Amino acid sequence: MDGAAAHSVTTDGAPVYHGGGLAVARDRFPGAPEPWIDLSTGINPVPYPVDDIPSDAWTRLPEAAAVAALEHIAAGAYGVDDAAMVAATPGTQALIEHLPRLVPTSSPAPRVHILGFTYQEHAHVWRRAGAQVDVVETLEALSAADIAIVVNPNNPDGRHVAPERLAMLAVEMGARGGSLIVDQAFADVLPPDAGIEPFMADPAVAAGTLVLRSFGKAYGLAGLRLGFLVADPVRAARTRALFGPWAVSGPAITLGGRALADRVWLDAATRRLEADRARLEALLTGAGLAIVGGTPLFVLARTADATSLFERLAHRGILVRPFPARPDWLRFGLPGDAVVWDRLAAALAARG
Amino acid sequence: MDGAAAHSVTTDGAPVYHGGGLAVARDRFPGAPEPWIDLSTGINPVPYPVDDIPSDAWTRLPEAAAVAALEHIAAGAYGVDDAAMVAATPGTQALIEHLPRLVPTSSPAPRVHILGFTYQEHAHVWRRAGAQVDVVETLEALSAADIAIVVNPNNPDGRHVAPERLAMLAVEMGARGGSLIVDQAFADVLPPDAGIEPFMADPAVAAGTLVLRSFGKAYGLAGLRLGFLVADPVRAARTRALFGPWAVSGPAITLGGRALADRVWLDAATRRLEADRARLEALLTGAGLAIVGGTPLFVLARTADATSLFERLAHRGILVRPFPARPDWLRFGLPGDAVVWDRLAAALAARG
Repeated sequence: MDGAAAHSVTTDGAPVYHGGGLAVARDRFPGAPEPWIDLSTGINPVPYPVDDIPSDAWTRLPEAAAVAALEHIAAGAYGVDDAAMVAATPGTQALIEHLPRLVPTSSPAPRVHILGFTYQEHAHVWRRAGAQVDVVETLEALSAADIAIVVNPNNPDGRHVAPERLAMLAVEMGARGGSLIVDQAFADVLPPDAGIEPFMADPAVAAGTLVLRSFGKAYGLAGLRLGFLVADPVRAARTRALFGPWAVSGPAITLGGRALADRVWLDAATRRLEADRARLEALLTGAGLAIVGGTPLFVLARTADATSLFERLAHRGILVRPFPARPDWLRFGLPGDAVVWDRLAAALAARG
Repeated sequence: MDGAAAHSVTTDGAPVYHGGGLAVARDRFPGAPEPWIDLSTGINPVPYPVDDIPSDAWTRLPEAAAVAALEHIAAGAYGVDDAAMVAATPGTQALIEHLPRLVPTSSPAPRVHILGFTYQEHAHVWRRAGAQVDVVETLEALSAADIAIVVNPNNPDGRHVAPERLAMLAVEMGARGGSLIVDQAFADVLPPDAGIEPFMADPAVAAGTLVLRSFGKAYGLAGLRLGFLVADPVRAARTRALFGPWAVSGPAITLGGRALADRVWLDAATRRLEADRARLEALLTGAGLAIVGGTPLFVLARTADATSLFERLAHRGILVRPFPARPDWLRFGLPGDAVVWDRLAAALAARG
């Protein structure tokens, strides 16, 4: 079942599965109709408009002042008062790769606890760096670690830990020299009352916490490669230094700054995605799947015949996300237009 | 004099100066006419055309197969038979930042010898990683090190070490477990007989050598962030793993693949740049400067009044590259059109 999922080559030999592997899917299901529909990722299918990129963004080395302006806009978008707490990076994944160097510990083999089941790159990167990594089931089990990692809302099940609880954990860990990493990759399109944004306002929380924010998912521009660290100013400065000059591309600076300043677009996108998520849940429930969870960018469903349903969808040119470790789960990204909705509905109706 | 040069914030507190800092120059010379002309970098002023970027390049996570196709094209462009020896990265600078992790040595404080005077980021990155860095003056003095670094052709003076000599050094260093790093950032637009390309064809050379290739300079798309490592397949694979999935943006994959396959464009650009370099040298010589060296992407000149000439050019809205450690040097990038040639000629003629 995992044969159609893309995976990255890793130094320790363990594959990490991701969505988005259309090339692999085309090879495995050569008779499927084109165009393929990729619902295997959690990316907004209606992207922020790409236009009017000035030629300087392509031709010149990105200037430090332009990056600083982007970080200022991002701070506003993320509800952070101090732009010195925000460091722009070429995608959240690149930031995750750097985390073992950004969060130094006194031990050469720090204890890293990750609230699971979740995005596998966190465990992979820390294991590669020599950490003792445990995937734990409860928030309480995190606090014994040197470094605790929470994806919030969680991928793939949408589990949401209340910010007050994370704040308590952050203060507790910071007080004894530990760090809390909160990956908010899917937080942008949550409803305003989800309580994500004020999380870093308390200096005692910020001192022990690193928040990761993705740009490409909510804004539908995953190819652009843009993400941010939100942390205390010293850690943010260290992040900028580790990535070095010109880490973020000119088009990413241009489009990122424009989009993150455009609250009207994000509010409309959030409302549309929330409505579409409800529609997708209804479609899946109607086809006999049980909803496990989700966010406005994806829905996780369970069905005993997930393996055969994955293949049936693939034969109809629709790629969804299986989980080798959870064989009865399938994650569905949101359809972006009527054609996709119709093809998905038809494929699900033909089931059984 | 260095007040108008951009510099990166570094973890060890030492500034590293770069060209390209127009924002800083505008602040320091507020009365200068717009538009500013930036001749402070060595970037082709006539970029490869940016058009027809498919929407998928922006919206989707870049697929592994697309990166592999780009690496295959790059291998062809760089004269490398085995595409497994080529790893795409988001810019050469990002690759330089990763070098201490890509070139492990038995010592925690390896001896790094850099053929100077050259691009300062190499020394900076290795010092930050704990290496004992010495900038040496001769090729012979390199071989005593664990890691030797040569920028070829060199920035800023264009010094070119013959590939046969580098190959001998590479074999010698590889035989005793050392590594040679050759930064060919400015090699693309050298004449075909410069002997850069066949350098890695010998397996004994490739085993001990890491070659860095930049995309943005020769193709005039420095904002895109694209560079390559050419090394033995094990090191190339390790590079891909260290950067993780989706390191290179969709637009970089699209434009990089298109441009690197376009030998006709590169040949024409090389001829134009060679002619323009000769014209620039004549212009500078006519204004009383002595030519120190250069490449088809920049000319390094010497004059006793470099400091005042830098400021006079800046007051006329022309930014060139000073070197705080070499106060009588100025580096000039190539003008890209008649307006720039005229403004530069007028500013130089007004001298004295």
